[in-house]
Amino acid sequence: MKLDAGLVFMSDTRTNSGVDNISTFRKMHTFCKPGDRFITIMTAGNLATTQTVMSTLAERNKAPEDRNPTILSAPSMFRVAQIIGELLRETIRERELTGLNAETTFNATLIVGGQINGMEPRLFMIYPEGNFIEASDDTPFFQIGETKYGRPILVRGFQSDMSFESATKLLMVSFDSTMAANLSVALPLDMLILPKDRFEPLQQRRIAADDPYFSKISTGWSDALRAAFYSLPDYVIE
Amino acid sequence: MKLDAGLVFMSDTRTNSGVDNISTFRKMHTFCKPGDRFITIMTAGNLATTQTVMSTLAERNKAPEDRNPTILSAPSMFRVAQIIGELLRETIRERELTGLNAETTFNATLIVGGQINGMEPRLFMIYPEGNFIEASDDTPFFQIGETKYGRPILVRGFQSDMSFESATKLLMVSFDSTMAANLSVALPLDMLILPKDRFEPLQQRRIAADDPYFSKISTGWSDALRAAFYSLPDYVIE
Repeated sequence: MKLDAGLVFMSDTRTNSGVDNISTFRKMHTFCKPGDRFITIMTAGNLATTQTVMSTLAERNKAPEDRNPTILSAPSMFRVAQIIGELLRETIRERELTGLNAETTFNATLIVGGQINGMEPRLFMIYPEGNFIEASDDTPFFQIGETKYGRPILVRGFQSDMSFESATKLLMVSFDSTMAANLSVALPLDMLILPKDRFEPLQQRRIAADDPYFSKISTGWSDALRAAFYSLPDYVIE
Repeated sequence: MKLDAGLVFMSDTRTNSGVDNISTFRKMHTFCKPGDRFITIMTAGNLATTQTVMSTLAERNKAPEDRNPTILSAPSMFRVAQIIGELLRETIRERELTGLNAETTFNATLIVGGQINGMEPRLFMIYPEGNFIEASDDTPFFQIGETKYGRPILVRGFQSDMSFESATKLLMVSFDSTMAANLSVALPLDMLILPKDRFEPLQQRRIAADDPYFSKISTGWSDALRAAFYSLPDYVIE
C-alpha cells in the first residue's frame, strides 16, 4: 500500500499445487542500490514462472554488460515496471510455446513498488500480459492472489495518512481474515516498510507462525468483530 | 442459515451480463402447502437456467397428474432436493446439448431449505451437476454466488442459538461487506424467516434501497469496524 509516509508491503509464503501439496516459499523479493534505489517485488500465481522472473532479474544485475536491461540501472520506476512486465510476459509465453498443457496455467501477477533517488515512491501491479497499472490517490493499494476475503477491511480501514504502525496492523487484520477462510494463504508472513526518501527499509522481517503480536491481533480481531457486531442495533421483526 | 430456531434466508436481486447490462430479478422463490410444508429456493448463476428450473417446478405443481415428481408432494426434504437437483442438471444439459457456445456457461447453483410436517427443517446446497450437500452443525450455513467478501463475518458471527433478529442483522452485515466490494451484488434484498414447526414464514419481505434499518447497519458497521480496528494494539516497530 502507498501511504503519504511511504510504502508498506506484506505477503504470505504458502504455495500449493492442490491441498495435498503445500510448501513455504518467499513471495517478497528486494533489489537495492544503496542510497540510490530500493525496489520490492511481490508475486502471485505460478511459482515456476515467478521464480524464473526473479532469478532472471537477479542474474541480469550480476552481468549488466550483457546489454539486458537491469532494474538497478533503469532511469525510473516506470521503466522498472516495464522491464519486469516484459520479462514476465516473455517467461509465460515461452512456457506456453512449448505446447505442453499444464493442469494450471503459467500465469502470474506481480506487485512492484519502490523509489529511486530524486523521484517519488511508486507502486505498480503487473499483469501476466506484461502491462501494468499504478496506484493513485483513488486506488492507493493493490492486492494479488486470494484478494476477496481480506478486501472489506482494507477498503474501510485504509487512510493515506495512517502511520506505518497502523498500516502494518491493518495488513495483518486483512491477512488474518483471509487465512481464516482459505487454506491457500498461511503464515509465516513477510513484511517490509519503506519510508519515503530513505532507500532502505525501516523494517523488513518475517512474522512467524508463533508471532505474539500477530496472535494478539488475530484473537483480538475476532473478539472486536463480534463486539462490533453486537454493538449494532438488532433487527426488529414487526 | 440453519439456526436452532429455524431457517433464515437472504438473497440480493441483481443480475448482470456485463457491468453495462444489469437488472433486478428475484432470486428467492417459495413453495407452500399450508400446514404441511414450506420450501424456499435461492438461485445463483445463469438466469435463463434458474428461471427455467423455477418455472418448471411451478408448472408441475399445477399439473401433478402429468406424473412428473412435484416438490409439494415429495415425501421428504431429501427427495425435494433430489427432484430439484435432477431438474437443474437436465436443464443445464439440454442447453449444452444444443451445441451453441455462450459467452457464459449455463451453470447455476441453488440453496434449498424448508420443513415438512413431522420432520426436521433441512437445508441443502445443490450443484449444477445435480448432486447436493446438506447443512450440519459443523457447516450450518451456505452461500452461493459471490461468497468471499461476506464470508469472514459470517464465520465469526454465526452461532446456532442466535435469535432471528441477530441472524438477520448478521446476514445484512455480510451482504453489506459484499456490496461494498462488488457491483454484481446490490439492493434490494429479499429475506425470509421460517421458524421451526410453523410451515409459514414469520416474516418475508423485501429490503429496499432506502430501507432505514439497512442504512443504519451499513453506516454503523463501517464505523464499528473502524472502531474495532483502532481498539487493537498498534504494531510496534523495534
